[in-house]
Amino acid sequence: MAAVSNESQNPVDPGSSKLQFAPFSSALNVGFWHELTQKKLNEYRLDETPKVIKGYYYNGDPSGFPARLTLEYSAFDINASIPARCCPAFGTLYNTNTFETFKSCDKKSLLEKEANEIWESIKSGAALENPMLLNRFLLLTFADLKKYHFYYWFCYPALCFPDGIHVIQKPVCLGDRFSLNQIQALQKAYDELCQTEGVTAFPYFLIKYHDNSVVVSPLKKWDGFFQDQGGKVTVGVYDPCNLSHYPGWPLRNFLILASHKWGNILQSIEVLCFRDRTMQGVRDITHSIIFEIKLPQGAFGPDCPKAVGWEKNQKGGMGPRVVNLSECMDPKRLAESSVDLNLKLMCWRLVPTLDLEKIVSAKCLLLGAGTLGCSVARTLMGWGVRKITFVDNARISYSNPVRQPLYEFEDCLSGGKPKALAAAERLQKIFPGVNSEGYNMSIPMPGHPVNFSEVTMAQARKDVATLEELIDAHDVVFLLMDTRESRWLPAVIAASKRKLVINAALGFDTFVVMRHGLKKPKQQETGNACFNTAPGPSDLLGSSLFSNIPGYKLGCYFCNDVVAPGDSTRDRTLDQQCTVSRPGLAMIAGALAVELMVSVLQHPEGGYAVASSSDDRMNEPPTSLGLVPHQIRGFLSRFDNVLPVSLAFDKCTACSPKIARIHYPATIHQ
Amino acid sequence: MAAVSNESQNPVDPGSSKLQFAPFSSALNVGFWHELTQKKLNEYRLDETPKVIKGYYYNGDPSGFPARLTLEYSAFDINASIPARCCPAFGTLYNTNTFETFKSCDKKSLLEKEANEIWESIKSGAALENPMLLNRFLLLTFADLKKYHFYYWFCYPALCFPDGIHVIQKPVCLGDRFSLNQIQALQKAYDELCQTEGVTAFPYFLIKYHDNSVVVSPLKKWDGFFQDQGGKVTVGVYDPCNLSHYPGWPLRNFLILASHKWGNILQSIEVLCFRDRTMQGVRDITHSIIFEIKLPQGAFGPDCPKAVGWEKNQKGGMGPRVVNLSECMDPKRLAESSVDLNLKLMCWRLVPTLDLEKIVSAKCLLLGAGTLGCSVARTLMGWGVRKITFVDNARISYSNPVRQPLYEFEDCLSGGKPKALAAAERLQKIFPGVNSEGYNMSIPMPGHPVNFSEVTMAQARKDVATLEELIDAHDVVFLLMDTRESRWLPAVIAASKRKLVINAALGFDTFVVMRHGLKKPKQQETGNACFNTAPGPSDLLGSSLFSNIPGYKLGCYFCNDVVAPGDSTRDRTLDQQCTVSRPGLAMIAGALAVELMVSVLQHPEGGYAVASSSDDRMNEPPTSLGLVPHQIRGFLSRFDNVLPVSLAFDKCTACSPKIARIHYPATIHQ
Repeated sequence: MAAVSNESQNPVDPGSSKLQFAPFSSALNVGFWHELTQKKLNEYRLDETPKVIKGYYYNGDPSGFPARLTLEYSAFDINASIPARCCPAFGTLYNTNTFETFKSCDKKSLLEKEANEIWESIKSGAALENPMLLNRFLLLTFADLKKYHFYYWFCYPALCFPDGIHVIQKPVCLGDRFSLNQIQALQKAYDELCQTEGVTAFPYFLIKYHDNSVVVSPLKKWDGFFQDQGGKVTVGVYDPCNLSHYPGWPLRNFLILASHKWGNILQSIEVLCFRDRTMQGVRDITHSIIFEIKLPQGAFGPDCPKAVGWEKNQKGGMGPRVVNLSECMDPKRLAESSVDLNLKLMCWRLVPTLDLEKIVSAKCLLLGAGTLGCSVARTLMGWGVRKITFVDNARISYSNPVRQPLYEFEDCLSGGKPKALAAAERLQKIFPGVNSEGYNMSIPMPGHPVNFSEVTMAQARKDVATLEELIDAHDVVFLLMDTRESRWLPAVIAASKRKLVINAALGFDTFVVMRHGLKKPKQQETGNACFNTAPGPSDLLGSSLFSNIPGYKLGCYFCNDVVAPGDSTRDRTLDQQCTVSRPGLAMIAGALAVELMVSVLQHPEGGYAVASSSDDRMNEPPTSLGLVPHQIRGFLSRFDNVLPVSLAFDKCTACSPKIARIHYPATIHQ
Repeated sequence: MAAVSNESQNPVDPGSSKLQFAPFSSALNVGFWHELTQKKLNEYRLDETPKVIKGYYYNGDPSGFPARLTLEYSAFDINASIPARCCPAFGTLYNTNTFETFKSCDKKSLLEKEANEIWESIKSGAALENPMLLNRFLLLTFADLKKYHFYYWFCYPALCFPDGIHVIQKPVCLGDRFSLNQIQALQKAYDELCQTEGVTAFPYFLIKYHDNSVVVSPLKKWDGFFQDQGGKVTVGVYDPCNLSHYPGWPLRNFLILASHKWGNILQSIEVLCFRDRTMQGVRDITHSIIFEIKLPQGAFGPDCPKAVGWEKNQKGGMGPRVVNLSECMDPKRLAESSVDLNLKLMCWRLVPTLDLEKIVSAKCLLLGAGTLGCSVARTLMGWGVRKITFVDNARISYSNPVRQPLYEFEDCLSGGKPKALAAAERLQKIFPGVNSEGYNMSIPMPGHPVNFSEVTMAQARKDVATLEELIDAHDVVFLLMDTRESRWLPAVIAASKRKLVINAALGFDTFVVMRHGLKKPKQQETGNACFNTAPGPSDLLGSSLFSNIPGYKLGCYFCNDVVAPGDSTRDRTLDQQCTVSRPGLAMIAGALAVELMVSVLQHPEGGYAVASSSDDRMNEPPTSLGLVPHQIRGFLSRFDNVLPVSLAFDKCTACSPKIARIHYPATIHQ
């Protein structure tokens, strides 16, 4: 049962002749909170200034239910259309950045400020011209987007008569007072007014009625409207309340307006609470109520009268409400938006120029799903990357899970799951929004004998073709294998296709993380979204041995090699096979590989960006994320990194034009 | 059915009068491979020199089964006892470091070398004194400890008669030739010989028998033993074979010996293949066979005769065998030994002085199970740390799994699991051998108001007590929380208890990882295993502002603060609450925190070690793992780390004696 409220907020005998009002109940639906989340993340960010929002009310709920002011996803678009026969109400949203601000907010002062504006609009006559000014609300919110808890406190300010309002004739149902003709005439007149004014509902209006006619008019037409009524004045209010003996909240400020404007010429007015209901498909206004009140005279000085309006919470006390949306949202969508949250948060204050889309949309191919591959994948997930593909031909062994953070003990049983498939599956378990795939296949390697049977030759040819297709379908290729020579073929293919290659390799307590030089296209081709394929101003700079080397002149992993890649797994002792390294090393190198990719993608010239060296640490960084080195060589024993830069070698066994021409004659470049 | 082999390894008509022998079948059980693994990891490491091992054989298998040479876990201890009535055989283990060496090993030359030694022992008479010299084997192995695949090739060298051995009297069962009396007398004589010599079985012996007596003797007693036999000589061989018409392999070299020594004085000899069987609890030698052969004369020159003996593989071809132990080991134990493998591998070549035990046994308390806590735990697992305890009071939210590598989407449902408990559970899933626990509790913080109700006060007191107990029970305390002030109380307690504190904190693209200064004990106390509590020679060095500062003079996280810790979570906007950071940062800082701990634990002075600074990068590092800095401050935008060192502040709000005295009066120090 809806509560009713009298003027002074004191308990009053329900049989008293003082008029009481049914307050609004705020109805903020999931769409509203979802939209607030989006606005907060993408638009408001740290901006706490008040925002205009729009709600609506109507009389359509079953008897006994409170009158609701509804805010839905469209609340943030003040031009959004309102459902048929709903009355809009404009409000002010105060969305705080912190729970502390939310709690410590001076609600009395907020209410007084709003009340004062209403009062001024009454005094100035603005409210007569635009009665929506009487009809406004406040909404104080704090959105805890980490937990998807939304705290809010709703206020529908109502100015008060110091001594209340005396009821002369108690409310009766319109059906008991008006004839069917009159009711139909009223409905017709009201509908025509709405149509004329082009609105879905009319909050306040003037009425004069006779036995067989009803006329309604906007407030601004007061002068002369009641001339022929012999002092009798009837006003209409669009009423969301469905209690038969009480009007709803919107009447309150209207009565203040009426008393202020006409208190000196009228003793009383008749009020028609227009209840425009459509229940089970049938429209009906006979539930409307009508009553007469004494219009208080000289009730006001120049100052704004006292105001009330903060909503009680679910427990009936004065306090905020909280909605836990995490329980009613689709968990997978919730996960998606949560994952993006931390990323968007970066943009708010720290890196406003960050172009997240370039990172999130990068399609990443991870060749190797071992210690490095697992750490790279985890860091890519942290950056919101949605497309991650693994290639590996190994199975998970018992020593892997403690060092390869996508695997567990169970994955090792029965000979071990194939790493590439298990890694892809695990990413889905971590975050269902990721698009991950695994290819359990070998990467053909020079120097490793292919058994020249039909079957193995056919398999090797198939593997090469698959690898080429995969590189084609991705933007960034990570080389994360544990042998030198397995990096060769992907390096050649990626160079010919001008894909960004990020290479990471581990020693015992040293690592190298590098981007391969990105070859200049012969003609300007339409590049993929991540890179400007056109070499930028860096071309114009002279490139000395160690500085100002543009991306297209940078070397690859094989440029400094004097020997061709051979079989480095042959004759390796166990400690070499395992790539024995300090356990923290792969996490550090894997994380740096992704951070290097991110920094490069953020650079306006992408892979063509001039390489930063250790010396550039003193200079202004080229992007908001910092340097874009060619190589990061790390030394864990010294907790040190250096940033060498090296030129491409024109006879490199992997990236030189000759090699690319031999292997990929169709895409000759330079 | 066991195969038999003739002298020349050529197929021979089974009805031929040339003697054929049943070869050994190697039986290397799981215990042998397990022990080889242990030896390889802990003792042999990269040492490929031949090792003496010991197997044994007996006649106890059902008829039709091949004669086995068994190697079990005890094979590596040449003094290990042999089961009753089993005959030992000594062999040479060639365990290679790589599969390539295994495959390319010159097996012909190995066999020839071994055969030559046998031949020399025959020529010199050593084999007469010690017939075990005739009875030797080779074992070539490669243990792939990553996959628990063991490759091996077994060889039981047998010297060959150029023209084979002619059978004069075909083998018959002893029961058909000897009376029951004779059989019992033989058994008794043999047993007495074993007892006299103190062995479980006697491989070769001399026999003379009459109707009612049997005498046996060691070979070395040849002279005179057969004097009264009228030229008849019977030799006994302990025979593992159970084929009724063929002797087993051990006879072969014995016949060479016999021919070499006595071929000029004897035409033929009688051979008794002594088959000492205990079937279903009943001992029986009646299955023994006896036959007569022609002893070849002038068969040998001075050079070693041709030898055979490499075992065929399961497919019947000449090739190695492979055992996949991963399928038959207890998976959890397999995981344990696998996890230790990578660590032990470090010791082999890279860091021979590494004291793994100091690391593995360190009990680690992780305060905070978020981005940092998860990465620290993963790196600790990689280092083989077995005791990891988490404290956190948060639940897993949807944004966590992509950045906190111990959680998955499922953990977020229904309000989210408590992080500390979920993290501890996950560690078990990754590696069942870890001892992980989680405490879902708050760390009392200064400046955060405790609601002064009985209940909350009691809870706060309980939390403080639990925290103190936990710090007591661990060796290393990691501070990995997301607020400054939550680090305060643990810092105070840990300082008073002289526990090594590793602190890590993140900014957006910067981090600090540091060890807190470790206070000097007032008296020399018995420290825990990880640390030398006694300040070492570093005390004697002068400590300037930035160099040669010993551990006990180093500052803590709060030493440089000018304000007391307060409530930093109040009034933080969402981007501050989330500790918004580049996703790679926590992985890097978490990994470095553990690597710092490891480096400090490896230092002989532990937490009292003089702090390394950036300048020390030029100098000889203090441990084989490198520097032991006080702080590592990282700057991801520059891919740079610096190593500042700072002194403890004598009025520090966390670690100064005054504070410790107030909070922990019972453990006043300095």
